[in-house]
Amino acid sequence: MDWRLRETVQRAVGRDCFFDGEAECLLYSYDSTARKAMPDAVVRAKDADQIASLLRLATRHGIPVTPRGGGSGATGGSVPVDGGIVLVMSDMNRIVSLDMDNLIACAEPGVITGDFHKEVESRGLFYPPDPASSAFCTLGGNLAECAGGPRAVKYGVTRDYVLGLEAVLPTGEKIRTGVETAKGVVGYDLTRLIVGSEGTLAVITSMTLRLLPLPESVRTLTVVFDRMDQAAKTVSEIIRKGLIPRTIEYMDQAAIVCAATRLEGLPVDAGAMLIIEVDGRETETLAMAEDVAGLCRSMGARQVRVALSAEEAAGIWAARKAISPALFRYGPDKINEDIVVPRSKIPEVVQKIQELKEKTRLTMVSFGHAGDGNIHFNIMLDKKDAKALKRANWAVEELFRYTLSIGGTLSGEHGVGLSKQAYFNMEIGPAEKALMLRLKHAFDPAGILNPHKIF
Amino acid sequence: MDWRLRETVQRAVGRDCFFDGEAECLLYSYDSTARKAMPDAVVRAKDADQIASLLRLATRHGIPVTPRGGGSGATGGSVPVDGGIVLVMSDMNRIVSLDMDNLIACAEPGVITGDFHKEVESRGLFYPPDPASSAFCTLGGNLAECAGGPRAVKYGVTRDYVLGLEAVLPTGEKIRTGVETAKGVVGYDLTRLIVGSEGTLAVITSMTLRLLPLPESVRTLTVVFDRMDQAAKTVSEIIRKGLIPRTIEYMDQAAIVCAATRLEGLPVDAGAMLIIEVDGRETETLAMAEDVAGLCRSMGARQVRVALSAEEAAGIWAARKAISPALFRYGPDKINEDIVVPRSKIPEVVQKIQELKEKTRLTMVSFGHAGDGNIHFNIMLDKKDAKALKRANWAVEELFRYTLSIGGTLSGEHGVGLSKQAYFNMEIGPAEKALMLRLKHAFDPAGILNPHKIF
Ligand SMILES: Cc1cc2nc3c(=O)[nH]c(=O)nc-3n(C[C@H](O)[C@H](O)[C@H](O)COP(=O)(O)OP(=O)(O)OC[C@H]3O[C@@H](n4cnc5c(N)ncnc54)[C@H](O)[C@@H]3O)c2cc1C
Ligand SMILES: Cc1cc2nc3c(=O)[nH]c(=O)nc-3n(C[C@H](O)[C@H](O)[C@H](O)COP(=O)(O)OP(=O)(O)OC[C@H]3O[C@@H](n4cnc5c(N)ncnc54)[C@H](O)[C@@H]3O)c2cc1C
Repeated sequence: MDWRLRETVQRAVGRDCFFDGEAECLLYSYDSTARKAMPDAVVRAKDADQIASLLRLATRHGIPVTPRGGGSGATGGSVPVDGGIVLVMSDMNRIVSLDMDNLIACAEPGVITGDFHKEVESRGLFYPPDPASSAFCTLGGNLAECAGGPRAVKYGVTRDYVLGLEAVLPTGEKIRTGVETAKGVVGYDLTRLIVGSEGTLAVITSMTLRLLPLPESVRTLTVVFDRMDQAAKTVSEIIRKGLIPRTIEYMDQAAIVCAATRLEGLPVDAGAMLIIEVDGRETETLAMAEDVAGLCRSMGARQVRVALSAEEAAGIWAARKAISPALFRYGPDKINEDIVVPRSKIPEVVQKIQELKEKTRLTMVSFGHAGDGNIHFNIMLDKKDAKALKRANWAVEELFRYTLSIGGTLSGEHGVGLSKQAYFNMEIGPAEKALMLRLKHAFDPAGILNPHKIF
Repeated sequence: MDWRLRETVQRAVGRDCFFDGEAECLLYSYDSTARKAMPDAVVRAKDADQIASLLRLATRHGIPVTPRGGGSGATGGSVPVDGGIVLVMSDMNRIVSLDMDNLIACAEPGVITGDFHKEVESRGLFYPPDPASSAFCTLGGNLAECAGGPRAVKYGVTRDYVLGLEAVLPTGEKIRTGVETAKGVVGYDLTRLIVGSEGTLAVITSMTLRLLPLPESVRTLTVVFDRMDQAAKTVSEIIRKGLIPRTIEYMDQAAIVCAATRLEGLPVDAGAMLIIEVDGRETETLAMAEDVAGLCRSMGARQVRVALSAEEAAGIWAARKAISPALFRYGPDKINEDIVVPRSKIPEVVQKIQELKEKTRLTMVSFGHAGDGNIHFNIMLDKKDAKALKRANWAVEELFRYTLSIGGTLSGEHGVGLSKQAYFNMEIGPAEKALMLRLKHAFDPAGILNPHKIF
């Protein structure tokens, strides 16, 4: 950035919000993938007006701007591949209002998701979206990715809880979308177009979220199987029977070993484990937990345990959340995919992963939100080993092809970002892609907002 | 249409699908509003390829095309104001598949919503969106309007049940959007952009819908109040308490009189009535029905009755669905609005309606989906009475202004169409409108698909 432009940007955003020291730039050069790219500068977002000034300038001068929440993204979404400015949203972190009468919240995008949970739950309310990264990701990042999490089986994903937005367009106009009511259909649904757009259409500066009453009672079950295929069949049987737990997480043997780094007593020799949660009224959860337990036993579970206390349940979740960081015990590099298949096809996809493992002799770990058919498939390797990397890339492409052939999708909640761009055309046809690019242009004619992402 | 163009269109769509006799044109010139406009011709849709041929021609020659489902729309959406071709979707009415393992259906847009309900319910499945017009509206029309209905309080609206679409763009490309799985975030959310776009962005030719297991048990309560404000306060108290019935419908005294045309024994002297439904497991609904009944009594209900049989409940719903057609007993013309307010503001808006009634001395009837804050506000009058019409228009504008001032929206489920265009700018700002028009252009560069609607 030449000094005159730098000066103009500084004046527009406020000197105290502008940083271009190497340390700051480095700090915001990466997310949870291995991708890295240095920005020219970092701007700490203050309010919508400041962001509008910045984006107007960016459009005029062709400066790339990359919005960034917690930087926990799993596909490189907040990595500034084209340099330019990283717009850090973390200071805009107020919960503006909690309307207890209408079960509606208004929040800024920089609020940490886990903090939001604590706040609403302390008032007897419930915000279901709960990515495993909740301790460090932000609501803004969750909206931009349409984050999921374990409770989506019953409660749906982030999209289902967003009623309206305030956002700034890349050209600098501030817009308001959606409603502050339970329903609303005036004009096109800009809200849900911006949700899941991975920070490429607009910068979200405020959001109106729908809440629910906190369920009276939750029961957490752990179910252990000797073999992975038994667990896979149980998941699809639960759905087929019309039981709708709020959560059905699963982990294969390698994932159980990772979880065991946080929780003693996990069956590290077992083929697979499910974590199932039911919620509702006290009487209802009791009956449902029994139904689910009975079904699991009849499907051959070796052990079914209902957590006896909230602490025990919390321990199980801490272990589940530990899997992702603990994976590196298996290798220095991770290839991390996020496919979804129709739930009845989980047994087939598990079988396919087994085959790929045998063929490539690579370490593969899978776990995820089985109740949605959403499987996080990880290959752990040393990327400096060129042959292993080649086999890994082959396995990923093979798995993607298979996933699409059985009616699946390449991403359930992590988005495309940079990581999945090479595969985008496998799922999205040319007419659909061309249309998406026309929409991008309608929002961002100069192409300055989070360039090179998705497409 | 000149004879050469007529010939070309006939060849493109098939002679057996093309009609331009006066009778056919008249038949498709109106919907449930009083609007009427004659098309030049009617084309009966057969499949996506035929529609693609038609739309390609339409874009090339600038022929307006208006998609039409059941013609039950409440805002003139399917009225061909610019002439051209009405594209009747009713023959594309197959339920293509019902996947019992994954709780997913694939259907064509011409399926009558009520037929779809019957089919899925006969297999123990549940499709919650249930507009009062379900006996004659279509799934395609429901998607285009993002239809609601009584069960939205707990289950949400049509949008929440659409996983993916097949659609034809105005330029003739066939596209597929979304997924056939529980989740998916690859690329922009074209699905939810097309849902609610009132037939102005694309013609929906097939849809993938999410189903639920049919609830084990439903209980239907009728609750009678002496005064409207008691009912209004009860609705917001139910929500505030975190009870989530699947349905909270309400009707004022004039609406009860209409409902009584179908059901004997309704309290035609009462100030207001609520129909409340709870569902879930047998034990749960019993407990919830008791909680709700207790709350209603404590709020001053004069009578609370739990329907004793499915037949009794069906009778109540038949009466509820009879309100809209029976309104004409109060006057030959209807002005029909569809505002939504935050649920806690229902008492205020009811009070406001009372004031408008007193000021204008017009007959006003209100009823609707109170659990969503969605109030159908009707003025019955003789439009030939110019003074009454003027007062009515004043009252509508006044109510709209008030609705927006308390955080509401002008339409919860009927859309903008033609009827609400004059008020569109009251809710949607210039930057948002300009953006929507750019999106329209990205889909429909020649502006041939359902022109003059929404904007
Ligand atoms: C250990 C671990 C576990 C995870 N578990 C889950 C899980 O269970 N479910 C799940 O869905 N994801 C999960 N993720 C992925 C990730 O946490 C989510 O994608 C999350 O939503 C990202 O939020 P963030 O605030 O960290 O966003 P970032 O990584 O900072 O950014 C993500 C994207 O959002 C954009 N963005 C951020 N803020 C804004 C804004 N205000 N306006 C516009 N665009 C914006 C960025 O440009 C970028 O494209 C996990 C990640 C990790 C590391
Ligand atoms: C008595 C009565 C009660 C009602 N109750 C409710 C209610 O409770 N809740 C509610 O939400 N609505 C209600 N409505 C309004 C209306 O029934 C809904 O808007 C319904 O969704 C319209 O469906 P339709 O098939 O009749 O569509 P139409 O009236 O034929 O068309 C409506 C719009 O959809 C478009 N369209 C239709 N098919 C397609 C397609 N395949 N592709 C693209 N665009 C298409 C049309 O162009 C038009 O803009 C009611 C109406 C009446 C008359």
